[in-house]
Amino acid sequence: MHRSGGIASFMRLPIQNNTQGLDACFLGIPLDTGTSNRPGTRFGPRQIRCESTSIRPFHPIHRISPFNFINVADVGDVPANPYNLQEACDIIREKYNELIRDNCITLTMGGDHTITYPILQAIKNRYGRVCLLHIDAHGDVTNSYQDSKITHGTPFYRSLEEDLIDPTQTVQIGLRGSCHTAEVYDWQIEKGFEVIPAEECWHKSLSPLMKKIRQKFGDLPVYLSFDIDAIDPGFCPGTGTPEIGGLTPIQALEIIRGCKGLNLVGCDVVEVSPPYDFGGTTALTASHLLFEMLCVLPKVK
Amino acid sequence: MHRSGGIASFMRLPIQNNTQGLDACFLGIPLDTGTSNRPGTRFGPRQIRCESTSIRPFHPIHRISPFNFINVADVGDVPANPYNLQEACDIIREKYNELIRDNCITLTMGGDHTITYPILQAIKNRYGRVCLLHIDAHGDVTNSYQDSKITHGTPFYRSLEEDLIDPTQTVQIGLRGSCHTAEVYDWQIEKGFEVIPAEECWHKSLSPLMKKIRQKFGDLPVYLSFDIDAIDPGFCPGTGTPEIGGLTPIQALEIIRGCKGLNLVGCDVVEVSPPYDFGGTTALTASHLLFEMLCVLPKVK
Amino acid sequence: MHRSGGIASFMRLPIQNNTQGLDACFLGIPLDTGTSNRPGTRFGPRQIRCESTSIRPFHPIHRISPFNFINVADVGDVPANPYNLQEACDIIREKYNELIRDNCITLTMGGDHTITYPILQAIKNRYGRVCLLHIDAHGDVTNSYQDSKITHGTPFYRSLEEDLIDPTQTVQIGLRGSCHTAEVYDWQIEKGFEVIPAEECWHKSLSPLMKKIRQKFGDLPVYLSFDIDAIDPGFCPGTGTPEIGGLTPIQALEIIRGCKGLNLVGCDVVEVSPPYDFGGTTALTASHLLFEMLCVLPKVK
Amino acid sequence: MHRSGGIASFMRLPIQNNTQGLDACFLGIPLDTGTSNRPGTRFGPRQIRCESTSIRPFHPIHRISPFNFINVADVGDVPANPYNLQEACDIIREKYNELIRDNCITLTMGGDHTITYPILQAIKNRYGRVCLLHIDAHGDVTNSYQDSKITHGTPFYRSLEEDLIDPTQTVQIGLRGSCHTAEVYDWQIEKGFEVIPAEECWHKSLSPLMKKIRQKFGDLPVYLSFDIDAIDPGFCPGTGTPEIGGLTPIQALEIIRGCKGLNLVGCDVVEVSPPYDFGGTTALTASHLLFEMLCVLPKVK
Amino acid sequence: MHRSGGIASFMRLPIQNNTQGLDACFLGIPLDTGTSNRPGTRFGPRQIRCESTSIRPFHPIHRISPFNFINVADVGDVPANPYNLQEACDIIREKYNELIRDNCITLTMGGDHTITYPILQAIKNRYGRVCLLHIDAHGDVTNSYQDSKITHGTPFYRSLEEDLIDPTQTVQIGLRGSCHTAEVYDWQIEKGFEVIPAEECWHKSLSPLMKKIRQKFGDLPVYLSFDIDAIDPGFCPGTGTPEIGGLTPIQALEIIRGCKGLNLVGCDVVEVSPPYDFGGTTALTASHLLFEMLCVLPKVK
Amino acid sequence: MHRSGGIASFMRLPIQNNTQGLDACFLGIPLDTGTSNRPGTRFGPRQIRCESTSIRPFHPIHRISPFNFINVADVGDVPANPYNLQEACDIIREKYNELIRDNCITLTMGGDHTITYPILQAIKNRYGRVCLLHIDAHGDVTNSYQDSKITHGTPFYRSLEEDLIDPTQTVQIGLRGSCHTAEVYDWQIEKGFEVIPAEECWHKSLSPLMKKIRQKFGDLPVYLSFDIDAIDPGFCPGTGTPEIGGLTPIQALEIIRGCKGLNLVGCDVVEVSPPYDFGGTTALTASHLLFEMLCVLPKVK
Repeated sequence: MHRSGGIASFMRLPIQNNTQGLDACFLGIPLDTGTSNRPGTRFGPRQIRCESTSIRPFHPIHRISPFNFINVADVGDVPANPYNLQEACDIIREKYNELIRDNCITLTMGGDHTITYPILQAIKNRYGRVCLLHIDAHGDVTNSYQDSKITHGTPFYRSLEEDLIDPTQTVQIGLRGSCHTAEVYDWQIEKGFEVIPAEECWHKSLSPLMKKIRQKFGDLPVYLSFDIDAIDPGFCPGTGTPEIGGLTPIQALEIIRGCKGLNLVGCDVVEVSPPYDFGGTTALTASHLLFEMLCVLPKVK
Repeated sequence: MHRSGGIASFMRLPIQNNTQGLDACFLGIPLDTGTSNRPGTRFGPRQIRCESTSIRPFHPIHRISPFNFINVADVGDVPANPYNLQEACDIIREKYNELIRDNCITLTMGGDHTITYPILQAIKNRYGRVCLLHIDAHGDVTNSYQDSKITHGTPFYRSLEEDLIDPTQTVQIGLRGSCHTAEVYDWQIEKGFEVIPAEECWHKSLSPLMKKIRQKFGDLPVYLSFDIDAIDPGFCPGTGTPEIGGLTPIQALEIIRGCKGLNLVGCDVVEVSPPYDFGGTTALTASHLLFEMLCVLPKVK
Repeated sequence: MHRSGGIASFMRLPIQNNTQGLDACFLGIPLDTGTSNRPGTRFGPRQIRCESTSIRPFHPIHRISPFNFINVADVGDVPANPYNLQEACDIIREKYNELIRDNCITLTMGGDHTITYPILQAIKNRYGRVCLLHIDAHGDVTNSYQDSKITHGTPFYRSLEEDLIDPTQTVQIGLRGSCHTAEVYDWQIEKGFEVIPAEECWHKSLSPLMKKIRQKFGDLPVYLSFDIDAIDPGFCPGTGTPEIGGLTPIQALEIIRGCKGLNLVGCDVVEVSPPYDFGGTTALTASHLLFEMLCVLPKVK
Repeated sequence: MHRSGGIASFMRLPIQNNTQGLDACFLGIPLDTGTSNRPGTRFGPRQIRCESTSIRPFHPIHRISPFNFINVADVGDVPANPYNLQEACDIIREKYNELIRDNCITLTMGGDHTITYPILQAIKNRYGRVCLLHIDAHGDVTNSYQDSKITHGTPFYRSLEEDLIDPTQTVQIGLRGSCHTAEVYDWQIEKGFEVIPAEECWHKSLSPLMKKIRQKFGDLPVYLSFDIDAIDPGFCPGTGTPEIGGLTPIQALEIIRGCKGLNLVGCDVVEVSPPYDFGGTTALTASHLLFEMLCVLPKVK
Repeated sequence: MHRSGGIASFMRLPIQNNTQGLDACFLGIPLDTGTSNRPGTRFGPRQIRCESTSIRPFHPIHRISPFNFINVADVGDVPANPYNLQEACDIIREKYNELIRDNCITLTMGGDHTITYPILQAIKNRYGRVCLLHIDAHGDVTNSYQDSKITHGTPFYRSLEEDLIDPTQTVQIGLRGSCHTAEVYDWQIEKGFEVIPAEECWHKSLSPLMKKIRQKFGDLPVYLSFDIDAIDPGFCPGTGTPEIGGLTPIQALEIIRGCKGLNLVGCDVVEVSPPYDFGGTTALTASHLLFEMLCVLPKVK
Repeated sequence: MHRSGGIASFMRLPIQNNTQGLDACFLGIPLDTGTSNRPGTRFGPRQIRCESTSIRPFHPIHRISPFNFINVADVGDVPANPYNLQEACDIIREKYNELIRDNCITLTMGGDHTITYPILQAIKNRYGRVCLLHIDAHGDVTNSYQDSKITHGTPFYRSLEEDLIDPTQTVQIGLRGSCHTAEVYDWQIEKGFEVIPAEECWHKSLSPLMKKIRQKFGDLPVYLSFDIDAIDPGFCPGTGTPEIGGLTPIQALEIIRGCKGLNLVGCDVVEVSPPYDFGGTTALTASHLLFEMLCVLPKVK
């Protein structure tokens, strides 16, 4: 079947309802009610799947086809309740508890960034506290927004509060832009996060940075969370809270390829908002990044 | 100032914080977390205001300028909490209680249809139970959706439950399209609503229907709620739950102009979703309908 | 699962590889190399599926859910070769021979109109020569175009040549617009087709026409082919050869609902071109029309 | 050459610099600085030409190919100065004086409506005072706007002032929408214009109206000016001052086809603004209307 | 109020009619009739205001909120006459004379580049001849275009002619692309301008350049004029005369942040054309740049 | 004539049917049926011509106007048959044989990359085997796709097979992205091609590379084929097979400017797909690159 056809699972992989027999799976969480500005990420998984159909299985830099090493399927979407964020989180956490019980690695298509919080709860249940590699324009470390403790601006405050991540093994890359107070840049540094603002990434390769991060994390389990708004809106306009001066897709590739060798236990790409994605380049980019993540999973040699 | 300039209040009317001295006001409720399908109506008020700037004050059919009869301003937006629909409703109701205390008539820009429920609570506080003229592709009479009793599919179930509207003085025009069960077409008829499905509107003027409705409502207080999805998506694509086979903008004009003589106590146009409004015709239509509503308010002779 | 989520099969129906146990199936043919003007219909099936996810199972006019009467699934796409139209036709015909062997009725998402020719070949194999109800802006009865006998402008010339359809039981509705010679309007009339040009449809309901067509076709097997360009480009811009002055979606609904009682043996909606479908209303309309077709299949009472 | 190729003159007609040997010509005036709201009509001629390439030469209702009767070419664009509207008008008038000296009939692609004023000056030079058939959402009879006497809102005030048109032989169809004062609806009626507002056109064929207009104009020379905003923005969003409740493309076809038999001495389609024409349907419609005008010119039997 | 709501003044700042009590103000000039290619900048101010609503008050690099140091408001738009560029300039100059009389610094949203000429006239009235930092793809130093001396291609020829700027203290950054003659690159160099073409900016940080510029200008009063087309159209497509190979948004940030310490007496961002700004990233970028300018005003420590 | 007007030949150059008296010509091949993913390139030539109208004749870096050195015209489009790729290739080859007989250099606007194969056949007829400078995201060296030997993925396999190009004098720049097998990266290296993958181009100027290439090619005849998908989709989304991590427009300019001094005998820019080119930046970029190519032709000193 040529690439324009076929029902759009991720890369047109087999569809199954559970993770039985799988080493890794793609899945979506179609949720956007945690967003504070432009909505639309509830359609992220569907659009990323559509764009993913043009990806082919062989990766020319790693010189491998990941499907020769591991079993992968698309396990569909998590039915997170858009009207009740707490309940949505409970549904997500329970679903992930089940999906990852037998070590299947989840590659999640968001959805707004709210979803990483319950995913990390499940990750902790299975792997204990993890290292976090967090690529984003924003720190997402607010305590609450509009009196709500569960929003797309709060997942890493919650995660630290619940000891899901090790703050001294957490790295944030790409932060930039205006904010309400200095706190969203300072609080996490006080807690031990390493923060690489976008300004430190300008005009250069991020491969050297990744080398340092690999040394830092060593063999510890790592969760990789990639907010598409880390990338400059010139390349990825389809997101809810764009900030100029961001990373390039080239740097995004350097980051993910630089994860080769890490003990990745889960990955996500979040905040793709199709109604703002004129031309579809944002969803295309997200689909490519997810394939790149697949290619650096530990079992893919 | 030519029409391309000026800060975009509705029709570039004066902006004020309250309704003191006003006979009518335009205002927005930037909320979309009650939606069940495509979001985006949180940006409805801003886009409707932008498009409204090209409206001029004289209405050639009524042959009047409404501003010669009544004092009108734009009173801004209601800060409804997007993360908590119950709280959003409380904020809206309290705000409207205050806005309409001295008989100012509100012309509301939505926002998803959730907002009509708390508006009707305030309307009842001020005017008692009212007649309802409801133009929509959907009945919006579901009891709950995804376990939530407050969504954009439930406002008129809630309103009837709380006796905010008189079911025997409620008319729904434009209903059509697929549904989960027959109930969303039958329940309200059992309760006494008069339902004019879209199919009964096809290929004809709605002026005769409006004559009957004027006779039905007489001098009773009437609330007019216009969901833009009542209009066919060929004309108004920018909405969350489009259904083909809808009303034409001509029929929409006939409906609103046919309200001349009714005792209108409040009006809204809801469900305009700018991210799906390619070309801006949906927001343009909404702005024109709001101006048409202004021209048929009781004090505008 | 709310409507924004889930892998996009048609209406999120179960996916299966064959038609075993099915009374009807949806499927796509992602092909556009038969087109003579704007391409893009190869992405028609995928986009129609995406838009179909917001359709709910109950039809309020027929007052039934078709799924209570028949087994339905999405059987995926036919891998038609885009580089060789003759081979593409062979692949399609063979696939349909197999799909309809046990009487499963196919509801096909195009693809350009080329595809109806091999479908009709398979239909003839199973049902013999059929009646044809053909809704289109163009007659599609050219003998050849640019020396090619298989294009989207030739399917019904080919079909008549191969005796797949009964010309005295063929009705074309919606034809209009400029052409190279009078022949594309005259040839088929000489052969016995009944042609209702768009001009005869203007300003009126098509229900009376459908009554006559039901009488004409009686109990004979009927194939229904709906080219989305029959509908005016104001409503359905996403197609390759738009012609102004076309049918309305309301008339399209009247046509399909007017097929209730016919002995339908196959249906298609073709020529949806997503890259020209700003706002998605064309694919949305196509998805609704396909659901309407499902609701009037003979076994759905 | 298939329709997607070839340098885009109107319908890919021969290009020439003058009207020698021509019975009719297409030409453009790429001007938009007379506009009062959204600009962009300076790109109207180019986009109309692009869309016109899909028109074929035979008209199935008139059952003729106009090119069998008359010589037609595309004579390019008039270099109207965008920075000086008075000078632009002078350039246009002089150019048209030359183009029509030997009776070539001009079919003009606008540009904003300012251009009809100097065209009518040239028309008067050649034919004397003419009848005017003016299709528009607006009367365009303002005396001045922002102190400027030459804008797209003033051409027919100027034209009457200079006795270019016979007010008792002027018909305006499609007027509607809000205005600054009643004058733009009343002034011309006092002068003798026949005004058919959009409201009188709703829900019906305009063929009977055109029969009356043919009787009124008889054999007198007639200029036909068609502002694309006469058509509803649901069908033609790509224009600068859209007003809801307008004509349908079907009615536009009835108007132009109803001109068959009139002594047309010039035609234009103006106010097509490509940057607002998502999907290109407005330019497509304009190109079709221009072809329809060609088919009803006096020499085309 | 969350960021999706509220009437769109710049950053939803208070609106006032004059500059009384203000240290700085945002304002718009909705004008595009000085443009030579694509129009649309008349809607620049409105769209920039819409996008600015998502900016928050704290700047993480400067580590300040400018509103803690200075009083700022949005003072609306200047009613420049689109039909008469000379009169438009007179209106703008007079308005700025008044606005800046008491040292309020204007941050102007264009509008096409024509507007900087009358602004500089007012600036000279108040501050005398100034240094000019001019970021642009084009030199804008043509003497006249189409016989017009006031267009968006002539402001700096006019400004030098009238001695509004010191040519030896004028720096132009980002110039590139084709032109009619060498003069638009050479004339200003002969006059003493320092010109940094885009090619000299490729592949590097502009911070070192800004250091030199700060040394050059010292404490002299500086006007900063930023034409958005300086930035590459991949990032900022929404402008009238795009040229490939331009600056990046990162370089734009480096330029503006590098102005910290300069004696800025006025700033503008011009040539944002919303009808060409698919996705809104151009207006978003302009709004961010204006906020960045606010943060480096002299009184903001 | 200002840039918004005039019939859109390339840069509004004179149009002629042959290359008599020409040193160079622009022409289009409106073909897209060789594509394997998104179609639309059949409209590439028309859209590139539209965008080219804003280019002016003087190049500020080379400091020349090419039109002072050579005669150039637009010779229209080649009528390649979209239904038969072999026949399309035959038509193209024959047409080019004729066009280049007297040494006119062709600057071709594609069309998909299929077209370079028959162009190279004609080039060989005239110049013998040539050096190839091939800029692309893909190697286009597949032997066949879907059983078709002539597609946009096979031109350089065919070209080598037929000895049209010298493999030891072939350079490919910009290759990247997923593929079916390693072969499309390895096969050509075995044959002697020099391949510079995109990863080797990241974060740096390509001027040093071009210096080496000039040394390599010396005075040998060189054909330059530029697939627009070599450029990152953030800058050029309007193409059929976008791959992230590509070249920047700045690097594209460096490549073409770096060809100054080469013995260029033909050039093309292919794979511009207007229906995916939101905002038109891709076609704009293509038009600029074609002008840049013109400026480095051997006769332009």
